[in-house]
Amino acid sequence: MAHIKLKDGWPGIRGLFAFRSDTGEILSQLAQVLLHDPNTLYRAERELIATHVSFLNDCHYCQASHGAIAAHHLYGDEELVDSVKRDPDSANINPKLRALLNVAGKVQDSGKSVLSEDVEAARREGATDREIHDTVLIAAAFCMYNRYVDGLATFTPLDQESYRERAAGVAQNGYLRLPRMIAEAEASAVSVQS
Amino acid sequence: MAHIKLKDGWPGIRGLFAFRSDTGEILSQLAQVLLHDPNTLYRAERELIATHVSFLNDCHYCQASHGAIAAHHLYGDEELVDSVKRDPDSANINPKLRALLNVAGKVQDSGKSVLSEDVEAARREGATDREIHDTVLIAAAFCMYNRYVDGLATFTPLDQESYRERAAGVAQNGYLRLPRMIAEAEASAVSVQS
Repeated sequence: MAHIKLKDGWPGIRGLFAFRSDTGEILSQLAQVLLHDPNTLYRAERELIATHVSFLNDCHYCQASHGAIAAHHLYGDEELVDSVKRDPDSANINPKLRALLNVAGKVQDSGKSVLSEDVEAARREGATDREIHDTVLIAAAFCMYNRYVDGLATFTPLDQESYRERAAGVAQNGYLRLPRMIAEAEASAVSVQS
Repeated sequence: MAHIKLKDGWPGIRGLFAFRSDTGEILSQLAQVLLHDPNTLYRAERELIATHVSFLNDCHYCQASHGAIAAHHLYGDEELVDSVKRDPDSANINPKLRALLNVAGKVQDSGKSVLSEDVEAARREGATDREIHDTVLIAAAFCMYNRYVDGLATFTPLDQESYRERAAGVAQNGYLRLPRMIAEAEASAVSVQS
């Protein structure tokens, strides 16, 4: 059971966005610009960074949902997502992404764990300053989302199918539909009351 | 030296906001709603939560800047801020804030470290669901900000006076001036180029 009273049946961060919609909207915008909007890093790559960090933080909801979105971008290759999530070093990915995942893993431990040589290794594989910046910020942001979801003990579905179903919509439409839906529900609740 | 090329002389997160202004604006909005906008938790209390978490994450820039803002809200009582930052259990604060700082410290370790008894202890001291929610989200957000600032090895001034000077402006005006200033600088740079 969640640590605070949330709407029944809304899993993970969705229940929290419904609980406080103004912060939910800002956190959705952050996910949108980091994971969905145009970037020289592919959406799949950014979702893999989010998934790996969520795995390291042992956040089941976030690793299952972002892992499913990553798999959607990768034509359903859940095996690849699983291998990247658990051990980027041995996964079948390009060297630039591997080096960026190493930076992300350091960020998960602590900002100070990122060493110049980690960043230089990514740069040698072709990563730009902007890509290094975005990798650090995505990893840092998931250290927030993971703690927000688990720190309030939100409801975590355990069946993979529910994550798969939702992933397709987010992968195609991005992260702004949920806050819009919550805002509409709040507006109609106000108009029923008045 | 920072891991990526940032504008000279812009310390900590300010250099990162200037590097990527769209994410800077969203992260500023998050700080504004969590730390500055009206809330049943005082601004000083919310800044103390941010400062304590930044101390636990060993992020000098964030603990110095938010510690200075907290001290500003507390009529300059830097000694109190320092004691809360290092050891909330022995600090001279009210029991509700002490219990919330305990929750925040658990979040810093991991979302899963927050136990029902931690939350119940805060509730017994009068904390509401919304205050528990906001405490968890502030603590989680600083696990992001701290990693963003240190993960890119931004410039960290070591003299306390520079933090004091800036704290007064932020304490009074909030967190949205910096992104507005950056947006104006970007707009005037574009108009000079065109």
